Amino acid sequence: MESSCSGCPTESSCSGTCPTVPEQTEAQKLSDVKNVIAVMSGKGGVGKSSVTSMLAVSLMRQGYKVGVLDADITGPSIPKIFGVSTKTEASEFGITPSTTENGIKIISLNLMIENEDDPVVWRGPIISQLVKQFWTDVIWGNLDYLLIDLPPGTGDVPISVFQSIPVDGVVMVSSPQQLANMVVRKAIKMGNLYEANFYGLIENMAYVECPDCDKRLEIFGKPHGEQEAKANNIPYLGELPIDPKLAEMADAGKIEEYHSDKFDQITKQILQQTSDSPENK
Amino acid sequence: MESSCSGCPTESSCSGTCPTVPEQTEAQKLSDVKNVIAVMSGKGGVGKSSVTSMLAVSLMRQGYKVGVLDADITGPSIPKIFGVSTKTEASEFGITPSTTENGIKIISLNLMIENEDDPVVWRGPIISQLVKQFWTDVIWGNLDYLLIDLPPGTGDVPISVFQSIPVDGVVMVSSPQQLANMVVRKAIKMGNLYEANFYGLIENMAYVECPDCDKRLEIFGKPHGEQEAKANNIPYLGELPIDPKLAEMADAGKIEEYHSDKFDQITKQILQQTSDSPENK
Repeated sequence: MESSCSGCPTESSCSGTCPTVPEQTEAQKLSDVKNVIAVMSGKGGVGKSSVTSMLAVSLMRQGYKVGVLDADITGPSIPKIFGVSTKTEASEFGITPSTTENGIKIISLNLMIENEDDPVVWRGPIISQLVKQFWTDVIWGNLDYLLIDLPPGTGDVPISVFQSIPVDGVVMVSSPQQLANMVVRKAIKMGNLYEANFYGLIENMAYVECPDCDKRLEIFGKPHGEQEAKANNIPYLGELPIDPKLAEMADAGKIEEYHSDKFDQITKQILQQTSDSPENK
Repeated sequence: MESSCSGCPTESSCSGTCPTVPEQTEAQKLSDVKNVIAVMSGKGGVGKSSVTSMLAVSLMRQGYKVGVLDADITGPSIPKIFGVSTKTEASEFGITPSTTENGIKIISLNLMIENEDDPVVWRGPIISQLVKQFWTDVIWGNLDYLLIDLPPGTGDVPISVFQSIPVDGVVMVSSPQQLANMVVRKAIKMGNLYEANFYGLIENMAYVECPDCDKRLEIFGKPHGEQEAKANNIPYLGELPIDPKLAEMADAGKIEEYHSDKFDQITKQILQQTSDSPENK
């Protein structure tokens, strides 16, 4: 007779009293998320949230259904970048995300607190729990892509995301500073511990163009993202400049009106690696 | 007869069985730290570690004895900026900090692990405990100033620092992006919860100068640090440019050779507010 444990991946090692697989929550029953992409950097301020937002917009423009999970609980930027201030709503089935002008679904703690600049003075375990709930208790509905904007570091939130959310791939963001690269290597090694699949490395803030003389100014040093990606055995997705227009649009909450051909190229490379690539759509 | 609780600040509210004040550790008995300054930003990547390092160097040049406690456990930058790789040493009395070329004492997790790019995949409570130990178990010796480089966010580490280290004042670092300002306001509100004393706000990355045409490029938007400081009722300490020379020196571990007149002005303003100002030295 077949045991009730037949087929369980831990059958051979467990004592036969293993807990049953947790039931899906109501919100999960109402959701179908095809691809989960985590955007990570290790170091803060290299433009992780900008990259997450640009990727969301780029995918949305190509007709995909996109959601953004803002996992940077103590420093959430996503709602402001998209100009979204409508609070999320909760029902017996779960939390309904807020929606941007163009239909991108967003969950962020800043859409749940009264004032956007109120601090969240919470210890790690509470923060981790919330991030898990952003996955289990949010009615994401049908999404082609859910992007997770991770906070800097390799602490509680990235640990919880890797442990409790089925991340399909990771996009790493770096800047030319060697300091940033060192911290990015830490993050890549962390990803490797969880056997993460890396879609590749974007070198952000690679240069800025002087609007007067068009000179390419490498203000954070010579870019070496390509080398860095190779040294870490992950694909290199390309470089992005510091674009004052982007900072302006992000501050104005109008990221959905921002275009970057360079970024569209990067999106294309990511899409080629995801299971839901354009040809499979 | 006088009770053994006489003079205890919680005498009126406790039951008479209050624990005695924890004894000083051996390391603390060997240390005398006159001023503790925390450098904070809320948002990552606004140059907190650079500001911490420049402040340390500026104070050291004026003859003060300076230490730097790198509280950014998962993204530590301080050893690299100072070019220090000598590991810290531990004895029965505590941990001996490493020392820079010019005598600044440094404690960082990166001086305790084998490879600088090994990730520290730790949950908050462990990280907090380590930061507390950086205060209680490190033989700081006699210091005029101990600077604490905080990680981004308002989570475990800043909470533990405010709760367990006697911080005399906080230096806030911001950048012109409104996004950064929002997160900085969160950090200031957090500081207020702990009745922190703010020495003031530095607006970093305010502009960059084109080396060819000398144009002032405000690549992250129009600076408004002065307004922001006023709105938050804290002093404004001044603006700093993005200086490619600084990024270069920091990457080369030669921050102690970097000079900035603008920063020296900022140091002067901070010194005027600390008890150990030049005239009291």
